[in-house]
Amino acid sequence: MIVKQLNAVPYAETSGYAGVTKRIVIGPADGSDEIVLRYFSLEPGGTTPHHAHGFPHLVKVEVGEGVATDGAGRERPLRAGDYIFVPADERHFFRNTGAGPFEFICIVPRRGEG
Amino acid sequence: MIVKQLNAVPYAETSGYAGVTKRIVIGPADGSDEIVLRYFSLEPGGTTPHHAHGFPHLVKVEVGEGVATDGAGRERPLRAGDYIFVPADERHFFRNTGAGPFEFICIVPRRGEG
Repeated sequence: MIVKQLNAVPYAETSGYAGVTKRIVIGPADGSDEIVLRYFSLEPGGTTPHHAHGFPHLVKVEVGEGVATDGAGRERPLRAGDYIFVPADERHFFRNTGAGPFEFICIVPRRGEG
Repeated sequence: MIVKQLNAVPYAETSGYAGVTKRIVIGPADGSDEIVLRYFSLEPGGTTPHHAHGFPHLVKVEVGEGVATDGAGRERPLRAGDYIFVPADERHFFRNTGAGPFEFICIVPRRGEG
């Protein structure tokens, strides 16, 4: 069993994604070889890439306000406490629409993380 | 894409677990057939079953204070914001040691949920 706090987790490589940080909170380095839990923080105006991929996302918003754009191009408003399911292959991205950080945990199957 | 708040999620069957409620926040009913995200709430003194199983848990404490007992029988203190990884086959349970509710999300592969 591993117990940790977020502030003990190093930042992962996210060069090329302006205004986005990522931490792999629970992942292969912890022995978790089926499911990976990441923590993302977006600066005001920051976005994640607009993409689709063959694995799902399970997301919980931790801090702030933003939107998720779904496969039909609709913006879905998000705030702390919201849970989001993005099925495999649906195009999507997340964008910070607030004045402070927008932060969320994002859970993927192992094949979705590097 | 599905967006929901916890208070819209119905309670799942947990008869036989005194002082424990469970909600399946993202699961098969949402189309999530690989990973399931559940939300547990334990009353003061409440515990989850002491058991081991062939799938991992990824846990984040949301509210309150408790302990997780690991495979060596050690109690690991937990508080809101902690992340816990329980590998497959490690015996474990969670117990509320606080005066209020102890609540956590618990993510499992699909085979770990019913």
